[in-house]
Amino acid sequence: MGHNSFGNAFTVTTFGESHGPALGVIIDGVESGFKIDREALQAQMNRRRPGGNPTGTKRNEIDELSILSGVYEGYTTGTPIAMILYSTNQKSTDYDHLKDVFRPGHADWTFFKKYGIRDIRGGGRSSGRETSARVAAGALAMQLLAKRGISIQAGTVQVGSVKTENRNWDEADNVMSCPDRVAAKQMIALVEQVRSENDSIGGIIECRVNGVPIGLGEPVFGKLQALLSHAVMSIGAVKGIQFGSGFACASMRGSECNDQRTQEGFLSNHAGGILGGISSGQEIVFQAAIKPTSSISRPQLTVNTNNETTTLVVEGRHDPCICSRAVVVVESMVAITLLDLYYTAFGKN
Amino acid sequence: MGHNSFGNAFTVTTFGESHGPALGVIIDGVESGFKIDREALQAQMNRRRPGGNPTGTKRNEIDELSILSGVYEGYTTGTPIAMILYSTNQKSTDYDHLKDVFRPGHADWTFFKKYGIRDIRGGGRSSGRETSARVAAGALAMQLLAKRGISIQAGTVQVGSVKTENRNWDEADNVMSCPDRVAAKQMIALVEQVRSENDSIGGIIECRVNGVPIGLGEPVFGKLQALLSHAVMSIGAVKGIQFGSGFACASMRGSECNDQRTQEGFLSNHAGGILGGISSGQEIVFQAAIKPTSSISRPQLTVNTNNETTTLVVEGRHDPCICSRAVVVVESMVAITLLDLYYTAFGKN
Amino acid sequence: MGHNSFGNAFTVTTFGESHGPALGVIIDGVESGFKIDREALQAQMNRRRPGGNPTGTKRNEIDELSILSGVYEGYTTGTPIAMILYSTNQKSTDYDHLKDVFRPGHADWTFFKKYGIRDIRGGGRSSGRETSARVAAGALAMQLLAKRGISIQAGTVQVGSVKTENRNWDEADNVMSCPDRVAAKQMIALVEQVRSENDSIGGIIECRVNGVPIGLGEPVFGKLQALLSHAVMSIGAVKGIQFGSGFACASMRGSECNDQRTQEGFLSNHAGGILGGISSGQEIVFQAAIKPTSSISRPQLTVNTNNETTTLVVEGRHDPCICSRAVVVVESMVAITLLDLYYTAFGKN
Amino acid sequence: MGHNSFGNAFTVTTFGESHGPALGVIIDGVESGFKIDREALQAQMNRRRPGGNPTGTKRNEIDELSILSGVYEGYTTGTPIAMILYSTNQKSTDYDHLKDVFRPGHADWTFFKKYGIRDIRGGGRSSGRETSARVAAGALAMQLLAKRGISIQAGTVQVGSVKTENRNWDEADNVMSCPDRVAAKQMIALVEQVRSENDSIGGIIECRVNGVPIGLGEPVFGKLQALLSHAVMSIGAVKGIQFGSGFACASMRGSECNDQRTQEGFLSNHAGGILGGISSGQEIVFQAAIKPTSSISRPQLTVNTNNETTTLVVEGRHDPCICSRAVVVVESMVAITLLDLYYTAFGKN
Repeated sequence: MGHNSFGNAFTVTTFGESHGPALGVIIDGVESGFKIDREALQAQMNRRRPGGNPTGTKRNEIDELSILSGVYEGYTTGTPIAMILYSTNQKSTDYDHLKDVFRPGHADWTFFKKYGIRDIRGGGRSSGRETSARVAAGALAMQLLAKRGISIQAGTVQVGSVKTENRNWDEADNVMSCPDRVAAKQMIALVEQVRSENDSIGGIIECRVNGVPIGLGEPVFGKLQALLSHAVMSIGAVKGIQFGSGFACASMRGSECNDQRTQEGFLSNHAGGILGGISSGQEIVFQAAIKPTSSISRPQLTVNTNNETTTLVVEGRHDPCICSRAVVVVESMVAITLLDLYYTAFGKN
Repeated sequence: MGHNSFGNAFTVTTFGESHGPALGVIIDGVESGFKIDREALQAQMNRRRPGGNPTGTKRNEIDELSILSGVYEGYTTGTPIAMILYSTNQKSTDYDHLKDVFRPGHADWTFFKKYGIRDIRGGGRSSGRETSARVAAGALAMQLLAKRGISIQAGTVQVGSVKTENRNWDEADNVMSCPDRVAAKQMIALVEQVRSENDSIGGIIECRVNGVPIGLGEPVFGKLQALLSHAVMSIGAVKGIQFGSGFACASMRGSECNDQRTQEGFLSNHAGGILGGISSGQEIVFQAAIKPTSSISRPQLTVNTNNETTTLVVEGRHDPCICSRAVVVVESMVAITLLDLYYTAFGKN
Repeated sequence: MGHNSFGNAFTVTTFGESHGPALGVIIDGVESGFKIDREALQAQMNRRRPGGNPTGTKRNEIDELSILSGVYEGYTTGTPIAMILYSTNQKSTDYDHLKDVFRPGHADWTFFKKYGIRDIRGGGRSSGRETSARVAAGALAMQLLAKRGISIQAGTVQVGSVKTENRNWDEADNVMSCPDRVAAKQMIALVEQVRSENDSIGGIIECRVNGVPIGLGEPVFGKLQALLSHAVMSIGAVKGIQFGSGFACASMRGSECNDQRTQEGFLSNHAGGILGGISSGQEIVFQAAIKPTSSISRPQLTVNTNNETTTLVVEGRHDPCICSRAVVVVESMVAITLLDLYYTAFGKN
Repeated sequence: MGHNSFGNAFTVTTFGESHGPALGVIIDGVESGFKIDREALQAQMNRRRPGGNPTGTKRNEIDELSILSGVYEGYTTGTPIAMILYSTNQKSTDYDHLKDVFRPGHADWTFFKKYGIRDIRGGGRSSGRETSARVAAGALAMQLLAKRGISIQAGTVQVGSVKTENRNWDEADNVMSCPDRVAAKQMIALVEQVRSENDSIGGIIECRVNGVPIGLGEPVFGKLQALLSHAVMSIGAVKGIQFGSGFACASMRGSECNDQRTQEGFLSNHAGGILGGISSGQEIVFQAAIKPTSSISRPQLTVNTNNETTTLVVEGRHDPCICSRAVVVVESMVAITLLDLYYTAFGKN
């Protein structure tokens, strides 16, 4: 399988560069006869799109999906679904100053070394814009999971020094998808301050999944947490992932960390909903560490293509904090992974 | 590909239950003409084996490898290598008290629900003993990587409240593989105390890889950190993973987190040696969170196969802290992943 | 991997229905820095397109490729290449008479039973038009193989009773790609006669590959003939395949069939260029049996969606003999398979 | 996936060389709770084993299976099943005369060129003995298919000039598994004559599958005939395959080749039970061309490892016609392929 594909029973393949004529995704393995909710699909796209969020970039792009195949009179046919995002704005002039110099913290140095060629227009394939294709596939997967009673919700729980222990998911309809209305406002204020300082800042996204039946995931290499980690760590900004008590387990005793059970159910969820790599029927909970975006308008040391030291100020309108827009990418990768496992374990009916 | 296999160009398939007649691994895709160092192979096996480590279980097992195929007169032939560990001690009486009851924090509840059948002998396929087959494959992969100048070293950097910031890897020849001789002693003392209290304790393992050329890993879904996370998170005891600054990124600014570069090289390594999913030539560094072992000799609430609440004290000689033995499993999964990527990127020569 | 994908190191994924808005292909794994010859690409497309060949359908379609990604200033970048064929003529009225009835010999009965849904427009995904996407990928693969000295050429060697033993490949620039100018004329005459009788006719395509280095193909399940058979038998019209002496081997003795060798080279090529599943450096030769096209304008018994017996005359302008257009599809599937194996065995340099 | 593996939902991995200490197979993905019929398993093994058939080699080997994992108290557990055949007779002296010389028609020349190393003992991995591991897996797959009402039967229908059009499968309990008792005797007589002349001879095996539900196989690259061709063409002796009317289609008209249908069912089966790559519910029928075995005791020209011309007489007790023993290998590969597709399409229940 190619490296731009993910999944077996439900396979997602993305293509396209940030400033090329189009980005897209091929979704193979979808059950036939499912009525796609186009509005819900677009709503997820809008959560990720640039300009749709005050804490993100000021660039304004409309991510409108064209469906080229696999759907007939609104219903899936069981054949591969191609969804395309045509670029409406391919202005590459913003990138001229990057032509011969590598952005610190950015993929363009390793890409150049690996491929010996450089598409300077916005990062090419390593651009966050590639994730829009994943969101299209993920939004469809979420609909197919919802039909089976499975719901996925991610939100920002930390930005820099602003951190919340509250999990009032009813309040998560803010731009940070933060389950704490007060903390959300503080996060937004912090992001604006960081933006004014020409800097960026990191955070933590938490994701919870409800309604997963017992039995998703396979022992050994196909453990549920392993597959979810693969999926979520394939998002460029993510630097770490932890399930349940995660890194806090390092300080815990077994007598504290084990989730005891009575006939009424589990008494705690330190495991994060997975036992032995298989879903236990509890809520699945994990956190992802999000690094500060690398493109900042501050002078930084770097090298050019001749390996000479130089100083770079990245121009353009970049995201000071990617959490608000990455939330839906996390949800999408989780949905893609879970639907693949669901199809594998229980078939497509 | 089956769920008991991992890798494409270098494919590892494990089989066998903890108390069955044998465990083993099939290694497919190894280059031909490589002379295997059998002693080095066995040395890695010994680092993992029960009874080989004072901080682990007191059960004493000899993990002696039989090679059934793929090697002719000491050299690899390019055909699949089968390595088998025959069980010398299949005593299952220790497990009679677990026949109708599920251990808290253990896989046997989800396995029973998923497969409708239960092999009570030591956890069957979910047992940590399965990892001995991975270590056999990983030890071979480490030799093949060493030939290419790549070295992998993991060690314990935290057990409960004992934590070290030192990284004196010359001192790591202690039973914890801890890069701090003094901390190692404190860790061992803490583990002994925990054992005497019939409890267990968690920790953190750090792994560093040197000599990786620029260019391992693929954009999008095959990012190096994504594949390593899949590999390491497939170890049962691991609850989280973070690369470079990891979760600390949540509190960092871009101006601090970006690794600036001059013509002499990078000025820092917050990224952990990976940019855009591709190795940058820097040291690759990550940490894995290890949960306390679930089998403890303290009374805990659980249910039996009739879903009636009961109290269980797990008997037998279990590991109070798995870090010391898991270190080599982490190294093995990293080696398997990197060799697979190396073969893919650069071929087998 | 999804069922609409083929290959590992070089992965081709097709999508699109015959009368949908577009057909396309995603090509993943192409080396970077290769200059694509757009004219040669289009030339292969033209060999397959409807209306481009007097022995084929009279429908006239222009198969013009749009490249959406993976190419920058004419060179491949190493990222996935998306090629799209937008439909210029989506007229579905020809198919109204097929709405409730299944064509004999056609896929629409099994598709309806498998998916429970029916896209009557031209066969949907099972249409021969899907192969245009394969030809786009195959034409690129042929360029990448040519760079490595490997050439693929297929031609018609039998149509009905017209059969040739001549292999004058210099003469193959006729519409049948037949390596015998005289036989080609007889084939064309026979096809015209069959068309006038509202019938169709089968044939045999032969393919030869030159310049393949020793060592392509893997023992056991990845034998070169097994992978080529998978590839070629995935073309809808192909009902059989044979390598070298093929079915004639059934009547041969070992002393006759073995290809003896002296220091000057092999004395014969009954094996068709493959020994033990691995290319031997000789010319690879195989034949594919092509069935008569199923859509004919003669009354035939069939059933409708209520499983009532009825008689159907398929209307529209269909191919009386698909050989002339299938030749390039065979070449394409061979090219895709060989490039995948070449990349696997020798890397992308 | 490694090249020694086959299948996705049901994955078979073989290992071992002909004269190494053991051959074996790992079977991943088997449903749990299935009671294996050990006697039926061994019966299939016996049909293939050397010395079990008067038309085969006179070497006598007992192929006794050891099951090392995946089965508990006779039932499958859902974990990988390892089956091993330990070598009882590793006598390699027969092969001393082959040390520096390549057998005509045999894999050892291409293996040496590909791997740069040579295990002269009986062909190593390319030996027909490898297929014993496939038969073990196939015999299990046949039991799992039988539970679902699917039966597979192969038999010899041609050896050299002896050919039968009869299909009296009740009579197939002869050593050739030939569905014609009289022809079987003629085949056996011909094989004995060929043996006395120190030569070998080819033949044709036909296979029919009954009880396959409508819907196995996937459009495009996963067509049922494509996957079966991959499977069957991966058997070393097979040089061609054809479904239904196969190569005879080249001379047929569409009006003759199309299988018309009334409400009572199909009126013919020229398609061989597959339409558009998907099983149609009819009997699946195909034929495989079997080449004469390459190891013959007649002088033949060949080269040695210094590429000097020499003459070789292969010694030892080889099969003059492999059809009788290959029949069960064909059945096994078909069973493995169909169970994989069945699991994929309908799940494991």
